Amino acid sequence: MPVGTAGTVKGMTQGQLEELGVQILLANTYHLYLRPGYEIIREQGGLHRFMGWPHPILTDSGGFQVLSLKSLGRVTEDGVWFKSHLDGSTHFLSPERAIEVQLALGADIIMTLDECVAYPASREAVHRAVKLTGRWARQAKEKLSASQGTEGWGLGTGGEPSTPDSRLSAISSQLSASEQLSIANQRSSIPSSQPPVPSAQPPALSPSLFGIVQGGVSKDLRRESVEGLLELEFEGYALGGLSVGEPKAEMYDVAEYTAQLLPRDRPRYLMGVGTPEDLVECVARGIDMFDCVLPTRNARNGSAFTSQGKVIIKNTKYARDESPLDPACECPVCRRYPRSYIRHLFVAGEMLGAILTTQHNLHFYIDRMRKIRQSLLFGAFAEFHSRAHAEP
Amino acid sequence: MPVGTAGTVKGMTQGQLEELGVQILLANTYHLYLRPGYEIIREQGGLHRFMGWPHPILTDSGGFQVLSLKSLGRVTEDGVWFKSHLDGSTHFLSPERAIEVQLALGADIIMTLDECVAYPASREAVHRAVKLTGRWARQAKEKLSASQGTEGWGLGTGGEPSTPDSRLSAISSQLSASEQLSIANQRSSIPSSQPPVPSAQPPALSPSLFGIVQGGVSKDLRRESVEGLLELEFEGYALGGLSVGEPKAEMYDVAEYTAQLLPRDRPRYLMGVGTPEDLVECVARGIDMFDCVLPTRNARNGSAFTSQGKVIIKNTKYARDESPLDPACECPVCRRYPRSYIRHLFVAGEMLGAILTTQHNLHFYIDRMRKIRQSLLFGAFAEFHSRAHAEP
Repeated sequence: MPVGTAGTVKGMTQGQLEELGVQILLANTYHLYLRPGYEIIREQGGLHRFMGWPHPILTDSGGFQVLSLKSLGRVTEDGVWFKSHLDGSTHFLSPERAIEVQLALGADIIMTLDECVAYPASREAVHRAVKLTGRWARQAKEKLSASQGTEGWGLGTGGEPSTPDSRLSAISSQLSASEQLSIANQRSSIPSSQPPVPSAQPPALSPSLFGIVQGGVSKDLRRESVEGLLELEFEGYALGGLSVGEPKAEMYDVAEYTAQLLPRDRPRYLMGVGTPEDLVECVARGIDMFDCVLPTRNARNGSAFTSQGKVIIKNTKYARDESPLDPACECPVCRRYPRSYIRHLFVAGEMLGAILTTQHNLHFYIDRMRKIRQSLLFGAFAEFHSRAHAEP
Repeated sequence: MPVGTAGTVKGMTQGQLEELGVQILLANTYHLYLRPGYEIIREQGGLHRFMGWPHPILTDSGGFQVLSLKSLGRVTEDGVWFKSHLDGSTHFLSPERAIEVQLALGADIIMTLDECVAYPASREAVHRAVKLTGRWARQAKEKLSASQGTEGWGLGTGGEPSTPDSRLSAISSQLSASEQLSIANQRSSIPSSQPPVPSAQPPALSPSLFGIVQGGVSKDLRRESVEGLLELEFEGYALGGLSVGEPKAEMYDVAEYTAQLLPRDRPRYLMGVGTPEDLVECVARGIDMFDCVLPTRNARNGSAFTSQGKVIIKNTKYARDESPLDPACECPVCRRYPRSYIRHLFVAGEMLGAILTTQHNLHFYIDRMRKIRQSLLFGAFAEFHSRAHAEP
């Protein structure tokens, strides 16, 4: 999942994301809660309509951002207090509130509030996070169940319902049959701004709620966390508290250990990971879903992922380089622009440098996952995995 | 012509420009001369290959930028001295040198060096500029003639000729038949990095050279300037020294007066103009071509051109506005995104705000010119013109 923090994958239009084959985006609840505000997004008919993206969206719970923006957050038994990084105003996110906000945003996959502990941390702190995250998971699940049927979810309260509907229809009509199928599935989960009275419209589906496993690098704590979540039966399970500073070997080991504790018929999502190598290594260890800012953030800093390793495009040696970012790549950027031009754009501070490198890097990631899926489908993943080892 | 100062229309990919129906871009010789340097662009096979744009390009002579970047330029009888705004280094542009640099860039339409005088200016200063610009026009014309057949023009001196060729072929193969025809015409004028020995390759065509009319708002000086240029027989004529501070009525009046002095079978190009209204008014006065930063620069400042007038998208009143930037517009932006979202992007400082507004504004301009051409073709321009008067 490319990361669209504030409801946009920085530098990409939604049309470009579709062309790259992006199936699902991640958006950050914390950022959207503060700006433009979840009430506005709910009134606009939810995040799909607001940002013109008629495909799946996953929102995080907001907890990770609160804790990662240092000194702005404080955890209590009841939830997290945080100060806005925009205006210093104080806010409180309880497990129930995190669900409410995500329902207002109208995402397809929503996450329970969790406490994510940095590495290294005392066993006591990690254990506390496991217990708190488990309790909050139950509260989140109960809140979601209670919301269904009573208040509906993510229902808009104003605006002209027909306008965004027809806008999304118009977008859909430009897409291929398989994409339209995906949207048809999706459409029913786009929140309606009509009250939920009997109508020709299909009822809004509930979003999928994923529980988050904590436990740091302690396998017994990971097991304790998993066992607590399994009782609650989530539609998917995320591995939190990894890629927060621990050695990579330990991350792989804990991901593998945790993944095999989780049900095979539910998605296993490793949050905030990772490098192109991580994707292959962690799929080999049982992970199905990832999100990471690496392809987009690195792109804006002029670092391109290629089949030959990283290309730091501002480097002087590319000033007269007529080859594409990655000679083995077939993305729209590599089919059209030489390195010399992309370097020039970065040196001259032109937006297009970041745009093109983002487009290329996202293609690199999406393509890698596409190849992984294909190799799994045809029973060739072991070979793919060992070939990936040999790459730079 | 959208303005691609440094070889990029800020925020747009070349693919997006094609989708908008952009037929020709303007690039600034001054900027490309300084960065990345015209030698690099020549080595890369010219600007078309460098920036992945297999369609027409017009380059200005560099003179206007030198003079508009205050205190950096000085005019002598032989040309203009200027200091780089990047590193303060000193450079000299003679009429011949301006041609050489533009040949190295490999544009399809190139301009003679001129002296552009701001408004208001003494009659003496304007007269001097007319005489200087006329002399320089002759020198430019002679330089271009001398370049043809002897040194060729815009010939690359290094690199792998096959790589960018196949790259441009690959781009062309994705285009429609009419676009391919346009590229086939264009292709022959893309500079080859092969020496001009007999080969299967068609000979590189010479670019079209346009002379520039000066004369401020004095009709007799405009006439004197035109008469000097007509003797030299240029392939097109540009009106310089307008839209530099004079009242709009005076600009229209001088444009009309000057246009009717120029041959009807050659393009008449009004440099640096203008507003959407200016396009209609000046076509009515005999102008065929325009370039202006207004649609792109305004977009980056959050100002959208619409059928209802300007929309300043950051305005609070758009925070919950579900309608598109322009309800009467069918551009990719207005078909997909609500004002509320675009406002959010600007408020949050997200690149996509500038990108989407640029795309919309360029569509607005391109569409206006398309409608003007259509109305001329069907003898309905007078009606179009009077309707445009009634618009906001």
